[in-house]
Amino acid sequence: MIMEKGISSVEVLPSKSSQVTAVKVVVKEPETKQTQRGKRVGFVLVHAGAGYHSESKAKEYKHVCKRACQKAIEKLQAGALATDAVTAALIELELARGTMCSFKFSLSEEHFRDSNVQDSPFTNAGMGSNLNLLGEIECDASIMDGKSLNFGAVGALSGIKNPVSVANRLLCEGQKGKLSAGRIPPCFLVGEGAFRWAVDHGIPACPPGIMATRFSLAAFKRNKRKLELAEKVETDLIQLKKRRQSSEKENDSGTLDTVGAVVVDQEGNVAAAVSSGGLALKHPGRVGQAALYGCGCWAENTGAHTPYSTAVSTSGCGEHLVRTILARECSCALQTEDAHQALLETMQNKFIGSPFLANEDGVLGGVIVLRSCRCSAEPELSQEKPTLLVEFLWSHTTESMCVGYMSAQDGKAKTHISRLPPGAVAGQSVAIEGGVCRLESPES
Amino acid sequence: MIMEKGISSVEVLPSKSSQVTAVKVVVKEPETKQTQRGKRVGFVLVHAGAGYHSESKAKEYKHVCKRACQKAIEKLQAGALATDAVTAALIELELARGTMCSFKFSLSEEHFRDSNVQDSPFTNAGMGSNLNLLGEIECDASIMDGKSLNFGAVGALSGIKNPVSVANRLLCEGQKGKLSAGRIPPCFLVGEGAFRWAVDHGIPACPPGIMATRFSLAAFKRNKRKLELAEKVETDLIQLKKRRQSSEKENDSGTLDTVGAVVVDQEGNVAAAVSSGGLALKHPGRVGQAALYGCGCWAENTGAHTPYSTAVSTSGCGEHLVRTILARECSCALQTEDAHQALLETMQNKFIGSPFLANEDGVLGGVIVLRSCRCSAEPELSQEKPTLLVEFLWSHTTESMCVGYMSAQDGKAKTHISRLPPGAVAGQSVAIEGGVCRLESPES
Repeated sequence: MIMEKGISSVEVLPSKSSQVTAVKVVVKEPETKQTQRGKRVGFVLVHAGAGYHSESKAKEYKHVCKRACQKAIEKLQAGALATDAVTAALIELELARGTMCSFKFSLSEEHFRDSNVQDSPFTNAGMGSNLNLLGEIECDASIMDGKSLNFGAVGALSGIKNPVSVANRLLCEGQKGKLSAGRIPPCFLVGEGAFRWAVDHGIPACPPGIMATRFSLAAFKRNKRKLELAEKVETDLIQLKKRRQSSEKENDSGTLDTVGAVVVDQEGNVAAAVSSGGLALKHPGRVGQAALYGCGCWAENTGAHTPYSTAVSTSGCGEHLVRTILARECSCALQTEDAHQALLETMQNKFIGSPFLANEDGVLGGVIVLRSCRCSAEPELSQEKPTLLVEFLWSHTTESMCVGYMSAQDGKAKTHISRLPPGAVAGQSVAIEGGVCRLESPES
Repeated sequence: MIMEKGISSVEVLPSKSSQVTAVKVVVKEPETKQTQRGKRVGFVLVHAGAGYHSESKAKEYKHVCKRACQKAIEKLQAGALATDAVTAALIELELARGTMCSFKFSLSEEHFRDSNVQDSPFTNAGMGSNLNLLGEIECDASIMDGKSLNFGAVGALSGIKNPVSVANRLLCEGQKGKLSAGRIPPCFLVGEGAFRWAVDHGIPACPPGIMATRFSLAAFKRNKRKLELAEKVETDLIQLKKRRQSSEKENDSGTLDTVGAVVVDQEGNVAAAVSSGGLALKHPGRVGQAALYGCGCWAENTGAHTPYSTAVSTSGCGEHLVRTILARECSCALQTEDAHQALLETMQNKFIGSPFLANEDGVLGGVIVLRSCRCSAEPELSQEKPTLLVEFLWSHTTESMCVGYMSAQDGKAKTHISRLPPGAVAGQSVAIEGGVCRLESPES
């Protein structure tokens, strides 16, 4: 049985650390046929990071997610591939990343290409990722197509405004078969080579002066000062210990700003993508989960051994998500009957309780997942109107996670900031929420 | 039941493509106590690539594997960590890679550091990897420690003679906990950033003139000519088709020269590593399975959910090994009772028959695996002499795979070139061989 009418329950389960684990499931009633507007149907779920989202900026975070949902649905309604829809959502999220603290209106892509905007705080958008130790921006992104099971990824990529568009292009080129002289096309490119490939394939380079913004540079200088101070006191072990503890607390409550999206189109094809500027002050060349197969995103259409189509996108501490191959782990778990229970157990046993992270104080991350399957809408309806049942969930061990979702049928984006309940400890507890949505095929 | 006395059987099973799948298991009798020489015991299994190894050069391939085994066992006998032993084997294999066609004697590391050897064909060793489209050498390598479950990897790394030593250093540094200001240490670095990190950590840079050798440069020029010719005729579709088929055949029979090793020490700790120069004429920045978590190598000590310690290293077409996350897949499968059957089924169902590679003409790769568990040697022996039972296997879908193995107790390296049986088609059939070895703890 799948949850056809939505679920509503509150459960309290013990976690590995004996902290109370909050489990909450919000109900989203199935969309009614009356709200159907577009010619095509489909569903998108996005996230603007698992980390910490202050109440005071909630409106801005939500606005970003809303716009990303709208972009994806517009693509689906125009008949685009699920991969192109998920890319459109990611481009919007990438443009908005880094502006969350001061986001007031959204700028078009053309704005960045045509104007000299580096003095505006809003120009962090899309670029403005965390700077690495050398003050450079290096991005990771990946995308997976549930139909072809193809994958495209870039790591430590500089000088390209939308890393996800390079990942998507790698995926597309990979589907064309072998290159000349029988060479296998690459699915994962990093650094300078990835940049050259992107430019060779018509993706415009972003002038260096625009990649780093006033906002991201200020954050970089602040972080650098903290780092220098921390290293200065390393000779005094007691002070160091204090400082590290305090720094870790700051890290825990800092926004981990990976963004991502999962999409299902009217044919039931799924796609997933993820994009990240990586940790602040990371070592140059460091690649995190957003670029890594099985770790950042996963999409897999229904098949011989997979009753459900599944799509997953992750966020959080890259190293934790890599070691647990969390995206793929979630996808596998979602093939069992109860999606909610499967995801909860995965987050508890394969993430927080993972033997691969046994030495970590806290395990920080979040996922958005969807799974879909065809079912007859209601017994009295004819077989010509197959219904797609979409279950969608998000779960995180961080203090909060900002998500948005939208169906083409409904036409309205919903946004939400999910939070751990009071008393729950980030890195040791799991929050899980979600809903269900029924998509009917459009009238032919 | 585990295979305590070795196995000997020949099976013929149908594969997905209706090609006959050859299954052969060689017998390696358990080592006797009399052959024990060292103070420490342990076992190593290495590979010098799954691809094509000509009979005429068999001696040289085997010699490379033998020396790699000896290096690892020397480390184990000196009480080194399993990760250091596996690194020692890899360094020897990296030094030898590319020289296989003309390998006559082995050169010490000092030789490369101190002398101007770029005119010698033997100086391909260690460096001399395949050159990319721009004529540069970029290497991938990774290592995993079964005890800590830590992982270290480098991708698209230039200018370092032994990429595996950087991966091992990343693993070691990662085990020291957080960096100053609570930063999480990186486990995967690529490109220029990886190079800088290596040099900052005392690993010597290799002068550019030494990285590319006469041998690898000649191969590069030959491949470039082929590529230009292939691209020239792309306007003539029929000619192109012929050329592609011929190129693919060449690719299929070409050596895919990833190298790797798996080790178990006397405490039953396992480690695995892999290193690759990547495909010839790859796009700059392309990263293959050798750098990717779960794809290139896997090591996992026995634990609550893992009755066996397992270690895996892969070789072959990077993209195929990535999409199937083959190293981890093998490790999971090896937790079931019959190691041989589990590995065979994994290669057939999760590799050749994988839905993730459904569009590929042939699926090319190979793995070496070991698994170990403690057992009492014989009923009459006292409990003070615990015995480590080591099952080791190699399996490949390529025409051949060159392996070597050695136990510290026996003190003699065995080498072998495994081949698909006549009539079996590379990319569609599986060869599998292996044995079992019983390691007794040394007298205290």
